[in-house]
Amino acid sequence: MDLSIEARALSQALHKVIGVVQHKSSQPILTCVLVSASRDGLVTFEATNTNITVSVTLPAKVDGEGSVAIPARKFAEYLGTRQEGSLQLLQSGEGRLAVVSSTGRGELPALPALDFPATPKFEGMDFSEIAASRLHQILGQTIRCASTDESRASLVGVYVHEASDGLRFVATDGHRLAVSRPGDGFDWPLGGEGMTLPTRGVEELRKLIDGAENVQMAKAENHLVARTVDQQVCMRLADGGFPDYEGVIPKANDRNAAVDRGALLSAVKSVSVFAQTKTSQVEMAFGSGALTLAAQSDSGTAREEIAADYDDVELRIGFNYRYLRDALESIHDEKALFVMGDHLAPALIRPESSEEFICVIMPMRIS
Amino acid sequence: MDLSIEARALSQALHKVIGVVQHKSSQPILTCVLVSASRDGLVTFEATNTNITVSVTLPAKVDGEGSVAIPARKFAEYLGTRQEGSLQLLQSGEGRLAVVSSTGRGELPALPALDFPATPKFEGMDFSEIAASRLHQILGQTIRCASTDESRASLVGVYVHEASDGLRFVATDGHRLAVSRPGDGFDWPLGGEGMTLPTRGVEELRKLIDGAENVQMAKAENHLVARTVDQQVCMRLADGGFPDYEGVIPKANDRNAAVDRGALLSAVKSVSVFAQTKTSQVEMAFGSGALTLAAQSDSGTAREEIAADYDDVELRIGFNYRYLRDALESIHDEKALFVMGDHLAPALIRPESSEEFICVIMPMRIS
Repeated sequence: MDLSIEARALSQALHKVIGVVQHKSSQPILTCVLVSASRDGLVTFEATNTNITVSVTLPAKVDGEGSVAIPARKFAEYLGTRQEGSLQLLQSGEGRLAVVSSTGRGELPALPALDFPATPKFEGMDFSEIAASRLHQILGQTIRCASTDESRASLVGVYVHEASDGLRFVATDGHRLAVSRPGDGFDWPLGGEGMTLPTRGVEELRKLIDGAENVQMAKAENHLVARTVDQQVCMRLADGGFPDYEGVIPKANDRNAAVDRGALLSAVKSVSVFAQTKTSQVEMAFGSGALTLAAQSDSGTAREEIAADYDDVELRIGFNYRYLRDALESIHDEKALFVMGDHLAPALIRPESSEEFICVIMPMRIS
Repeated sequence: MDLSIEARALSQALHKVIGVVQHKSSQPILTCVLVSASRDGLVTFEATNTNITVSVTLPAKVDGEGSVAIPARKFAEYLGTRQEGSLQLLQSGEGRLAVVSSTGRGELPALPALDFPATPKFEGMDFSEIAASRLHQILGQTIRCASTDESRASLVGVYVHEASDGLRFVATDGHRLAVSRPGDGFDWPLGGEGMTLPTRGVEELRKLIDGAENVQMAKAENHLVARTVDQQVCMRLADGGFPDYEGVIPKANDRNAAVDRGALLSAVKSVSVFAQTKTSQVEMAFGSGALTLAAQSDSGTAREEIAADYDDVELRIGFNYRYLRDALESIHDEKALFVMGDHLAPALIRPESSEEFICVIMPMRIS
């Protein structure tokens, strides 16, 4: 390999893929980034954790093609100190890659490109274009509610499927459920058969589409591939079915309260300073025209009162403040609507003006 | 206590003093900030680790005077969520302080002000004004070389004394020595008798004077007090004498090399990526007109060559790259001058154009 490239562009490309590289691994190749230069003047940086592969392609002056795997973090650290002008990447003797600048030269040990896990290759994939910003929003709304318990593989991600009322993105961790229903204006061309996008894959996908106008996506076997002009994310879909969540969505709740979303979010953050560490509980008391939040622990107490469109009997209900905060931060509307039953029934929270996004939270017994 | 104050100003004042508050302590009072309101419309926030006391005074609408000690971090955390409008601080029943906003109220446990360690009071202190920016620079140049080994109390700080050639600020950790000689233009009115400002005290003092034009300082017994209009730092000076360091400054070194400071600093940072973790060594090779830096370890090798005004015999000398970096970052000149003997003799590094600041570094045996 022998190529020349602008130093800053090289450093930026590496940073786009380094997120999936293992810090430590019993397989040293998984701590590497694969650098491949082709005669058509392109260099590709590729990183993988075997389930998710991210790659970036850049134009470069290629004088000799080839591929090598380089320890990613030392490579990035060295490039961080050489951000001026252009750099030459040059294979140097056996198993080394040299980074040559106008003032000096660094050499890193390289591993054979052949040892690098092969990116799945799919024949005749059919890519379709999706509007990026809406997908970014939907994934952001739902991913917060995904489980972080790796032993429950089917819950660690966002489930996409076609329901009777249209396409849905769903995530749950067993205590709360987020459902985003993008509606007719959103085109999802990957089929209505359910698939679960793993959490890490969703994170990389959101990075890829952040700020992009469109993204091309395709599904093949048990993988999803998303790409823009110069970047690609390939993720293995989660195995196993997603639980039947429909029954969790409350249908009979009949106590509605509309609350200014920003004021409530601010109040939740404020009182939660004094929530008990063990329970994270804040108490909400819906009364005529007003909502009072309160929390208390050894470190202090706090209470906030804000206006609420509510005219039912007083209802005191306890929630984990993190779930409330996540739900409110996922709502893009001036007012949040709480649809509740009694103090033990799952509560539904959604934008007042639409049902495109709903969040269901199990209440806690008030301590 | 009953006072009203702008929320953001309150939060900012607390952040200025919170640095010295213990995170945890067997004495809960040391995790607190003392809040004192006086009838003349001033509120003071005071924090201490018993050696260093920092205070900030703000105007407020005081309707009832008084003092209480409040757990500093929970107080700051709660104030962080209430940064709009004004807040009332109100003593609430026995041992509580209420923070009342337009929408709610938080209450924190308070400890009696009497339990808070008393700030040393000195009779008739004679304050003198010092130019803040030069002092900020001098302390910044020297403090990096102070020891961090708390068991060597006399080395954990900056020693200020009047030498035969004028005032000096000195710090050492046994491997390197920094000496700042501000010269006639700098007025230090606290006397020529040596005193060691402790590292934490220097940090708080640098915060205090950062951006200020002048600062008032006074010395009384074994304390130094520095103040601006609304802030004060009081530090207990380090006990015990500072070692006799004069002999460490090389007098017989006769090999001089002047090097572009920025280029060398960049080269040091670059090659140090591949320095061995255990030794942190980079090798410098001064040759005719050029300086070569190199480092190698299992993670790779690097070499940088830059121009140097040097015309002596080739000299290879090894340094801990952190010491080199600190010395170069403390030099405010286009060129750094290396004054060396042989590869085992302490090297002197200073700005080429002045001897106001010197740094002496012990070389390492080249491995």
